[in-house]
Amino acid sequence: MLTIKRLSIDDAKILIDGARARATEIGIPMCIAITDESGTLIAFERMDGGKVTSTVVAQDKAFTAAAARKATHEYNAAAQPGSLAFGIHTEVGGRLSIVGGGLPVIVDGEVVGGIGLSSGTPQQDMDCAQAGIDHFLASI
Amino acid sequence: MLTIKRLSIDDAKILIDGARARATEIGIPMCIAITDESGTLIAFERMDGGKVTSTVVAQDKAFTAAAARKATHEYNAAAQPGSLAFGIHTEVGGRLSIVGGGLPVIVDGEVVGGIGLSSGTPQQDMDCAQAGIDHFLASI
Amino acid sequence: MLTIKRLSIDDAKILIDGARARATEIGIPMCIAITDESGTLIAFERMDGGKVTSTVVAQDKAFTAAAARKATHEYNAAAQPGSLAFGIHTEVGGRLSIVGGGLPVIVDGEVVGGIGLSSGTPQQDMDCAQAGIDHFLASI
Amino acid sequence: MLTIKRLSIDDAKILIDGARARATEIGIPMCIAITDESGTLIAFERMDGGKVTSTVVAQDKAFTAAAARKATHEYNAAAQPGSLAFGIHTEVGGRLSIVGGGLPVIVDGEVVGGIGLSSGTPQQDMDCAQAGIDHFLASI
Repeated sequence: MLTIKRLSIDDAKILIDGARARATEIGIPMCIAITDESGTLIAFERMDGGKVTSTVVAQDKAFTAAAARKATHEYNAAAQPGSLAFGIHTEVGGRLSIVGGGLPVIVDGEVVGGIGLSSGTPQQDMDCAQAGIDHFLASI
Repeated sequence: MLTIKRLSIDDAKILIDGARARATEIGIPMCIAITDESGTLIAFERMDGGKVTSTVVAQDKAFTAAAARKATHEYNAAAQPGSLAFGIHTEVGGRLSIVGGGLPVIVDGEVVGGIGLSSGTPQQDMDCAQAGIDHFLASI
Repeated sequence: MLTIKRLSIDDAKILIDGARARATEIGIPMCIAITDESGTLIAFERMDGGKVTSTVVAQDKAFTAAAARKATHEYNAAAQPGSLAFGIHTEVGGRLSIVGGGLPVIVDGEVVGGIGLSSGTPQQDMDCAQAGIDHFLASI
Repeated sequence: MLTIKRLSIDDAKILIDGARARATEIGIPMCIAITDESGTLIAFERMDGGKVTSTVVAQDKAFTAAAARKATHEYNAAAQPGSLAFGIHTEVGGRLSIVGGGLPVIVDGEVVGGIGLSSGTPQQDMDCAQAGIDHFLASI
């Protein structure tokens, strides 16, 4: 039998709080998704003005980061044309996202969930995702 | 040009608060989804212990209730074998849910969003969805 | 509660009129799709001779332009190999189109819908989509 | 942070051993799927002669039993025409199986995974799934 650590709903809300605060600061209304370590949704928030397409993209970024235990921007770098991982973005029904903005949430070296942001540029999404993680890690 | 009223993220959180309170009262950890009037997700919460399958089912119930402007239990009654609507539950990629627990959110006679609950029996899901709406309507 | 502006069916027909006129002028029978600001279809027309595949592609272009509030040719530029947005074209079930020919319809600085053209070259599709928007804006 | 118990690959193999032994006894080559408590596949075996369609059906049964924490034959009973849960079998992309043969694996009152069998009659599938669980529980 394995023992797994997983974000709770309270943890998920802290991650969202941190990401939302940074999104507000930079003036970009975001879609924010938090998944558990299996990639299953725990919490989601679309700030007023967040994009419709981003409701799905944010979830897919969080899913990928958690379930593949890899930041989506790292997948992006690894899956460029010419690489043997090129094409991986169509896998898992197209849900494997290689667009920057998805980060695994890591506690004591273990992936316990994922956070995905979408509605800004990939760089802005990554920035707010990191802010969510920083806020969460500071709280524990 | 049309003018549409739509739930804000703050409205969505009030709906979730009301549904969560009732779910806590009856002791069933629920998945709770809120969509806008087009069926696009605004907010989602999986209470600790909510079912994995319910993360999708709750969203589909809210989507259906808002986008078809009909409670999912009303669809259930209308789509039983022998009815001309029988079979509608496989439409829209299977997202058209006819399982009780999805309710349209109606303000001044207009559908402004949807709420979907899943993890209990359909009756429990319906009960908590209604509690979300009652709490929201009492707040405006 | 939010208040949203959205194209009506009459608006959608004016957009199609403008796009069809230009398509006729350049001699390319087009598929023309109009969505609301959430990406949901309002009106669609396949001119005699429009391509079968384009019935879907035109809808996806209009969906993307409206729901992501961005022209599909701008996504094309942003999602080239080497970019952090590379790979986004498989998202939302592959519906997020980065092929030129989808434009958001913007009134008073707000996205109120989307128009998507398909059957010609991307340049021709973009040209006719813009003609639809020009015709619509001149009418209001 | 939550702490979750989950089947290991060694546990999964014991479950398969038990199910395979019973399938051999009744002379029905089976597809046997084991998932973790989130419904993600851990192990799969198609006995020589197992049905092609059953490679998917067995996975969906194990997924449902684990992720919804309910035996698929219990869902079958709950989702008959006339019930408010009627129609649930098309949810989660049609993966929510209500065909007998999927059982949750429960240890100390907690669902730690799921087992799904397919290729026989539902009754035979249920029989072999139970044999897998009996063999596993006897081993711990």
